[in-house]
Amino acid sequence: MPARVAILNGPNLNLLGEREPEVYGRTTLAQIEAACRALADREGLDLTFAQTNSEGGLIDLVQDARAADGIVINPAGYTHTSVALRDALAACSCPVIELHLSNPAAREEFRHSSFTAPVVTGIIAGFGADGYTMALRALLGLINTRQKG
Amino acid sequence: MPARVAILNGPNLNLLGEREPEVYGRTTLAQIEAACRALADREGLDLTFAQTNSEGGLIDLVQDARAADGIVINPAGYTHTSVALRDALAACSCPVIELHLSNPAAREEFRHSSFTAPVVTGIIAGFGADGYTMALRALLGLINTRQKG
Amino acid sequence: MPARVAILNGPNLNLLGEREPEVYGRTTLAQIEAACRALADREGLDLTFAQTNSEGGLIDLVQDARAADGIVINPAGYTHTSVALRDALAACSCPVIELHLSNPAAREEFRHSSFTAPVVTGIIAGFGADGYTMALRALLGLINTRQKG
Amino acid sequence: MPARVAILNGPNLNLLGEREPEVYGRTTLAQIEAACRALADREGLDLTFAQTNSEGGLIDLVQDARAADGIVINPAGYTHTSVALRDALAACSCPVIELHLSNPAAREEFRHSSFTAPVVTGIIAGFGADGYTMALRALLGLINTRQKG
Amino acid sequence: MPARVAILNGPNLNLLGEREPEVYGRTTLAQIEAACRALADREGLDLTFAQTNSEGGLIDLVQDARAADGIVINPAGYTHTSVALRDALAACSCPVIELHLSNPAAREEFRHSSFTAPVVTGIIAGFGADGYTMALRALLGLINTRQKG
Amino acid sequence: MPARVAILNGPNLNLLGEREPEVYGRTTLAQIEAACRALADREGLDLTFAQTNSEGGLIDLVQDARAADGIVINPAGYTHTSVALRDALAACSCPVIELHLSNPAAREEFRHSSFTAPVVTGIIAGFGADGYTMALRALLGLINTRQKG
Amino acid sequence: MPARVAILNGPNLNLLGEREPEVYGRTTLAQIEAACRALADREGLDLTFAQTNSEGGLIDLVQDARAADGIVINPAGYTHTSVALRDALAACSCPVIELHLSNPAAREEFRHSSFTAPVVTGIIAGFGADGYTMALRALLGLINTRQKG
Amino acid sequence: MPARVAILNGPNLNLLGEREPEVYGRTTLAQIEAACRALADREGLDLTFAQTNSEGGLIDLVQDARAADGIVINPAGYTHTSVALRDALAACSCPVIELHLSNPAAREEFRHSSFTAPVVTGIIAGFGADGYTMALRALLGLINTRQKG
Amino acid sequence: MPARVAILNGPNLNLLGEREPEVYGRTTLAQIEAACRALADREGLDLTFAQTNSEGGLIDLVQDARAADGIVINPAGYTHTSVALRDALAACSCPVIELHLSNPAAREEFRHSSFTAPVVTGIIAGFGADGYTMALRALLGLINTRQKG
Amino acid sequence: MPARVAILNGPNLNLLGEREPEVYGRTTLAQIEAACRALADREGLDLTFAQTNSEGGLIDLVQDARAADGIVINPAGYTHTSVALRDALAACSCPVIELHLSNPAAREEFRHSSFTAPVVTGIIAGFGADGYTMALRALLGLINTRQKG
Amino acid sequence: MPARVAILNGPNLNLLGEREPEVYGRTTLAQIEAACRALADREGLDLTFAQTNSEGGLIDLVQDARAADGIVINPAGYTHTSVALRDALAACSCPVIELHLSNPAAREEFRHSSFTAPVVTGIIAGFGADGYTMALRALLGLINTRQKG
Amino acid sequence: MPARVAILNGPNLNLLGEREPEVYGRTTLAQIEAACRALADREGLDLTFAQTNSEGGLIDLVQDARAADGIVINPAGYTHTSVALRDALAACSCPVIELHLSNPAAREEFRHSSFTAPVVTGIIAGFGADGYTMALRALLGLINTRQKG
Repeated sequence: MPARVAILNGPNLNLLGEREPEVYGRTTLAQIEAACRALADREGLDLTFAQTNSEGGLIDLVQDARAADGIVINPAGYTHTSVALRDALAACSCPVIELHLSNPAAREEFRHSSFTAPVVTGIIAGFGADGYTMALRALLGLINTRQKG
Repeated sequence: MPARVAILNGPNLNLLGEREPEVYGRTTLAQIEAACRALADREGLDLTFAQTNSEGGLIDLVQDARAADGIVINPAGYTHTSVALRDALAACSCPVIELHLSNPAAREEFRHSSFTAPVVTGIIAGFGADGYTMALRALLGLINTRQKG
Repeated sequence: MPARVAILNGPNLNLLGEREPEVYGRTTLAQIEAACRALADREGLDLTFAQTNSEGGLIDLVQDARAADGIVINPAGYTHTSVALRDALAACSCPVIELHLSNPAAREEFRHSSFTAPVVTGIIAGFGADGYTMALRALLGLINTRQKG
Repeated sequence: MPARVAILNGPNLNLLGEREPEVYGRTTLAQIEAACRALADREGLDLTFAQTNSEGGLIDLVQDARAADGIVINPAGYTHTSVALRDALAACSCPVIELHLSNPAAREEFRHSSFTAPVVTGIIAGFGADGYTMALRALLGLINTRQKG
Repeated sequence: MPARVAILNGPNLNLLGEREPEVYGRTTLAQIEAACRALADREGLDLTFAQTNSEGGLIDLVQDARAADGIVINPAGYTHTSVALRDALAACSCPVIELHLSNPAAREEFRHSSFTAPVVTGIIAGFGADGYTMALRALLGLINTRQKG
Repeated sequence: MPARVAILNGPNLNLLGEREPEVYGRTTLAQIEAACRALADREGLDLTFAQTNSEGGLIDLVQDARAADGIVINPAGYTHTSVALRDALAACSCPVIELHLSNPAAREEFRHSSFTAPVVTGIIAGFGADGYTMALRALLGLINTRQKG
Repeated sequence: MPARVAILNGPNLNLLGEREPEVYGRTTLAQIEAACRALADREGLDLTFAQTNSEGGLIDLVQDARAADGIVINPAGYTHTSVALRDALAACSCPVIELHLSNPAAREEFRHSSFTAPVVTGIIAGFGADGYTMALRALLGLINTRQKG
Repeated sequence: MPARVAILNGPNLNLLGEREPEVYGRTTLAQIEAACRALADREGLDLTFAQTNSEGGLIDLVQDARAADGIVINPAGYTHTSVALRDALAACSCPVIELHLSNPAAREEFRHSSFTAPVVTGIIAGFGADGYTMALRALLGLINTRQKG
Repeated sequence: MPARVAILNGPNLNLLGEREPEVYGRTTLAQIEAACRALADREGLDLTFAQTNSEGGLIDLVQDARAADGIVINPAGYTHTSVALRDALAACSCPVIELHLSNPAAREEFRHSSFTAPVVTGIIAGFGADGYTMALRALLGLINTRQKG
Repeated sequence: MPARVAILNGPNLNLLGEREPEVYGRTTLAQIEAACRALADREGLDLTFAQTNSEGGLIDLVQDARAADGIVINPAGYTHTSVALRDALAACSCPVIELHLSNPAAREEFRHSSFTAPVVTGIIAGFGADGYTMALRALLGLINTRQKG
Repeated sequence: MPARVAILNGPNLNLLGEREPEVYGRTTLAQIEAACRALADREGLDLTFAQTNSEGGLIDLVQDARAADGIVINPAGYTHTSVALRDALAACSCPVIELHLSNPAAREEFRHSSFTAPVVTGIIAGFGADGYTMALRALLGLINTRQKG
Repeated sequence: MPARVAILNGPNLNLLGEREPEVYGRTTLAQIEAACRALADREGLDLTFAQTNSEGGLIDLVQDARAADGIVINPAGYTHTSVALRDALAACSCPVIELHLSNPAAREEFRHSSFTAPVVTGIIAGFGADGYTMALRALLGLINTRQKG
């Protein structure tokens, strides 16, 4: 049975490529999804890829993915404000990677703290759209280690 | 006419019994609802019992319950982050009880402050699933006092 | 082609006229909408007027209004807590006016900071329901200046 | 052998009924004690009920009650300032309930933090004099659960 | 008898048009005064328009305007540092509007707090020189409401 | 019937004259009591004068003095740490004057905040032993004003 | 030669009796001056009594009074914001009494800190207009002690 | 004449050996007293050894020991909250050693600050029951140095 | 045409030589002015030298000096409290040197932050009266560099 | 010419495999170096791999690597305390990746802030020893993008 | 085999006896080493005694001493700033004693926090040069307890 | 005998002229040294000029310079983080000038505080490379004053 993984995207990521391209780059979310699906196909992964602007909707997606083998999440603006999302992630037993397109430490003060980071396995930030396939590969590594370990 | 009361549950409470059982216990939300309905029946209460992962959805539920005689709310993660939920609760003229399964004061620092607590009538925390029937009984007491007072 | 403008309202504003009238006044949101539509008609504006209790829903509305010529937003409780809403507003290239019915500086400490204010063009606060038509007129001024400038 | 429980009251609670009745209500501590004793009699509990204005005296009472089956404590002003009282409560192995007549979260900022709350089992606040019998019933529940568990 | 209103300007506003035009625009204070006087004439208002670099001088102006029907004040740098000016404004029984040319929330951290804002009726910020006539119109609205109310 | 007043002294004031005389002066508490009694005799006051090192003891003294016509209290070290003492003072309906021998604002940072000051009528600090008779005279003034007012 | 003393009043105190009488009382500054002059005459003091809304003006007055035998100052709003006034007071070698009509500790948070208090001899607060003659008498005591000491 | 020394113990230390033995160890206070008395006998010291749960009682003990040649104090919970105890210790002219059984820096944040530490001669923490004899020996060294110095 | 420079002095600097000489030295401001004038004469500078106790007056002086080639300012107490002065300095296009006689970093905490420092070219502190001629020479260097650059 | 990259390791990383293996894993730094060298060989990279316990030594290494095509740095304890290291990294024009074996956000509060993160290109944390080859691959991607871009 | 212990000294301790003798005393580090060596000889300990001004050098020394039976460290200025040193100490499994010559709690605010204290066994501060032999004896006690325990 | 002075430079100053020239200018450290040596020769000073990236190395240099007649130090990044360097400087009895090329107050928040500034004689900041000769001349002035004084 193929490993199941979910890539979940938070608010405003549907605007990728249009919104503040000097911060977030010019690649669209559809292009990112395509790259991730190509990699997933090569690696034989069953991939869910979703985006929502809603905090509750993102929590629903996380809860749906709890039975998966791994989660990559880009919580965007909810990173810094959502205890509820943190609680949902803390309820996941599979590995979770938190992903940011830009480097939050190089931006406004309020982006320097994260409610979600303390409950995830690993963090990847600042690599733009390439961070998604990096994260997917890293997740694959974590899943393989678990299965062996 | 029977008194109408609403028990409203915030994010991740649908996972009760599965999620971090060492913190939240092993009773499910369905079991809690059953216990509350049994008590409501004995007391002749018209009970609404609902859960949502959405901040806006929880505000909708609070607004719907404004005409009720009393509200028990477990805001979960929104306790610490939602001014909008606080505003909704402040717009209720009936008694409101804030409920927590665990004792937030014994957990992470960010759980020690509550946006909702200053606008509710009373607070019950740390009694696990039993807190629900305790809160329902306390609400009944507050309603009776009001009707007499 | 008429200028297109959106007036977007956040959580609990559907209760206007009922909720804490000593703070927010007795005018309802429907009455405000009527006054704004009357002014829009006089000025030949294509007006969208919407309200939602949901943070994600409000972000959806902002994204929908990105192609408009101007936005008036009363983010209510999300003013003080939503980085995601701020990010959505920062992605708008048209002028945005932040509106508050009451004067947040005269209320609780947590209402003194705003995530959205740093990314809007102008702020109007404390004029009650009249603030809406003030904001609409101010927006019209900003749009005219842009078209000339 | 009947379960032994102690209800311990901190500073100024001897003034109940006289002191700031708009905050604390008009019931006296003697009336509360009578209600608790009536309930204790019905439930077959061996009840100690005491009050002191002294921090050291309250610690003495807690130490005396360490061998009991449960404690209800209203630490009043010492809630927010006494590490020594916290240490005494942390030394109790029986369940402890922290009780407040009013809702501290709705009062001054310095009443929002509690040294004792992190070391107790549960918290009940805002129910006035009725909170005492609520707490006693909740304690009975905790004792029963322990004996079974 | 015509309504009497005062428009009072704090430190460095005499430099308008020259000082940091990218922040404050290129309109001079004399041009603003002319626009306000034109509007005042049309509306039959008795207008006082003044500027001073002195904190005490600004307080004197506020005290002189106490018997007026309304005040618009741009406290400039004293917004963030003057308790004395706040006290003078708090002593006014007429409506007061605080005005800022730029949006202080989009500037340095120390411009995010205001001693005067909590004691004024309404706030208008970020509309440049146009804010003055906006404020004058809003003041007229407040005065009319008062006279009717 | 003579007015009844109490002068209550907190911890370490029994050491006056010996302890850090460069801060607190060389007059003993007995000498201060004598001066106060002399003044009380001249003014026909019924004076209680007491000292205790105990927080609970000081609260007991305040409670005993609640029925008096006025209280002067030097809470010494409890000024900065005792919510319980504040609560006791807040329960007094007679005028209360807080007295300090030295000027706390000129000493360590932790002496700059006072739990008791917000609930007293007036404050006298920095006048050494003379502050006691000043306070007693001021209390007499407050009592007379009340009786007339 | 008579002792020379100055009573210096800061911003908005010229409004005494009119401004927020529930906070500051109904006595005017002229009435206070009259009472102080009457006492000064009885005691043979050479009294300067002045008021200004200007920070720099108040510093000028303090500098003028440096050669006097004592100063009573009510710095009003400058208490909390003026390092320059503090520096002027620190340059006085005569005794200085800081006076407040109301009790700042019972008001807004920003009134709880004082730049001037650490450099004065004594503080009197909360006694309304009577505080002035209290302060003058206390100053007389300090001057007498100095002359003897 | 033998040197006189006092070993003073604050709240909950009477529970030593029973209370949280993983933090405080299994030795009782009576055993510690015995070890100290044995050492005192060998060294020819006149030893006072006392414990109290009361803040005022501990201050009384410190005042009684002021005439001694040295004090060892374990203020326990009062370390972090008692300005009054600090003032009592500051009034001692003999050397004072502050002792803690555990290492407060390795425990909760609120145990990282000490009101008493700035006014003592030396600090010993983290050596469990052995810290008492260490402190007594160190005190002996300080006394000898004084007598020679 | 000779370069024009202004040396501007804030509150209490007229007292130099008398006020706290252990902090500020014994040289008077007249002596400093003489030394600066001598240097200006040697260097062919057109020198303005002024002092005022008034914040608004100091802003007036800065505005008058805006057309000069350089400014040396010792803002004294206004350094730490005046946003209005900062705004005036930010409006100067010539080089500005902030000067302090003493080393503010070695004094009270509130002297460690400066509103003006972020908008000046350079800072010289701690060199006493000699700092003035140092600053004048440094200003000359900056002006020369500009003219060449 | 092969791309030149440096992998630089800060304090205590020479202990990897021995020190707190539950936090940092059981792989040694030599094993990590071997894995990185194998990858570098496959990719034709010229790899420098170094470790030092010295802050200055790490700055020296960063300065030496400034002419390289990319840097991976695990600053370990200096992450949170070294402005000097940040300045050295800010002086590098090549891409820099900050690497942490564990997830700092899940550890002590003082590990939540980073002086270096704001000046690096990307951050990878929480993947243990595997993070090194992940970082090397990511660096390769950044170098390739630069060469193309 | 004799127990091996290391006494490690941080920056500026080589200046002991010369540097600020009123704070640190007049004994030199060489004299301290001699006293420690004499005690070590009597107790049959194999003693390493070292000093360095370098943070990295001190970490090297700690790493070298990891295989010893115990460490006494006086981290001096690195106490308050070095996470890297803390990490090195946390990697030691032998007992570690932190030593300070003076009492840091009685000095500047920034000396009140310690990065190293939370990871050591015990702390000795304020006993001057005598603290070294005290610490060595205490270490001997801890080693003996371990060997028995 | 010529006066001996040391100019000591901290981390990354060896990169001057290359690193962030828009902040630090284009002059190299070698050019600065040459200018300082030329001035030293003219003034007959015996000059040491050194740079190191190491905190411990910089402390060594300061200790070596303790016997000199004056020190100029540019601590660069260690300004804001090194208590150990502060302690080394505090141990110098000769005058010390702290120098910064840029104006730290105009840069990031963490550059606004300095551990070293409170223990130096004077501060010069923001004059670029010219600051070095300014500092050397100022030091000469301080040395001359000392020799006369």
